[in-house]
Amino acid sequence: MQLIIDFILELDKLKGVTRKVKPLGLDRYENSAEHSWQLAMMAASLAHHAQTPVNLDRVIRMLLVHDIGEIDTGDTMAFVEGGWEERRAAELAAATRIFGMLPAAQGAPLLALWQEFESGETPEARFANAMDRAMPVLLNLANDGQSWRENGIGYERVVARVRAPIEAGCPDLWKHIDAGLQEARQRGWFGI
Amino acid sequence: MQLIIDFILELDKLKGVTRKVKPLGLDRYENSAEHSWQLAMMAASLAHHAQTPVNLDRVIRMLLVHDIGEIDTGDTMAFVEGGWEERRAAELAAATRIFGMLPAAQGAPLLALWQEFESGETPEARFANAMDRAMPVLLNLANDGQSWRENGIGYERVVARVRAPIEAGCPDLWKHIDAGLQEARQRGWFGI
Repeated sequence: MQLIIDFILELDKLKGVTRKVKPLGLDRYENSAEHSWQLAMMAASLAHHAQTPVNLDRVIRMLLVHDIGEIDTGDTMAFVEGGWEERRAAELAAATRIFGMLPAAQGAPLLALWQEFESGETPEARFANAMDRAMPVLLNLANDGQSWRENGIGYERVVARVRAPIEAGCPDLWKHIDAGLQEARQRGWFGI
Repeated sequence: MQLIIDFILELDKLKGVTRKVKPLGLDRYENSAEHSWQLAMMAASLAHHAQTPVNLDRVIRMLLVHDIGEIDTGDTMAFVEGGWEERRAAELAAATRIFGMLPAAQGAPLLALWQEFESGETPEARFANAMDRAMPVLLNLANDGQSWRENGIGYERVVARVRAPIEAGCPDLWKHIDAGLQEARQRGWFGI
């Protein structure tokens, strides 16, 4: 029991990992714990639009754990260029450490879900990745492009980064976001 | 699709609903979105200690939605006396409004999970309620009784509030917390 409690308290650190978007109406940056919650709810609302039928419960569990490696590495903005291999290795080491705090019967399946998300090869992982890429775009579209403006991110760069994963996991959502991005460009909501 | 997006963006408001405990090491109050995430992870780590075997996926979904009514009503501290009937009615109205933003095929099952948690009658709801009552206690035990001190809450009041639901859903967890509470009392971590 003490091992499990220590793990649960370790998770508290994800509440302190900040991202680049701000929650709507709040003057602070989003953290990776509340982001993970929102993605799980998003998946529950959108699963019937998945490109391939998915096991929603596996998607939800995957989204709950997908950012836990950031407890050690912090969040890296989706638009940072390069360094991805080093970052993946660091996050794998982090996830291995953190899930390794649990007894193996509990920790091993959670680490396997984390790795499945990272590999992005199953229908569940593709759908989960689509949620993860789409959510900050939806927040920016509802917030005058807040993080694009603050970080000097242009329209083409956003599309290059998010189109393929969103379209692969949830094509209907991409159609919606595609239209929104074009409108945002006309409104001048991009940083460059 | 627009209805679903509107719902997902409405959920952003739960990130702004603050509770009485502070995340460990942070000088701000916890919000109900990150709390919901942590409870889901806690359930995934502790399900094998449930008093009755539970369907973990239903527990996880229940914990993800259990606080959504607070978007309209705000969080009420677990130790407020009285007014519970009015509060339950207000939260039901809120949950009905918020899940009603979704198409019925998506919204109705989520509202049903919310109601199941509130009723607390199924093994899943009892286990989920145990997680919800235990988590702030675990945070206080790891944080010198922060919210007990700040709000003048005594040992007996904590035990009266949390013992029955934690013991009913997860007796092993209660044994751990019981010992922690007694130690906290000796250390003078309660508000009165």
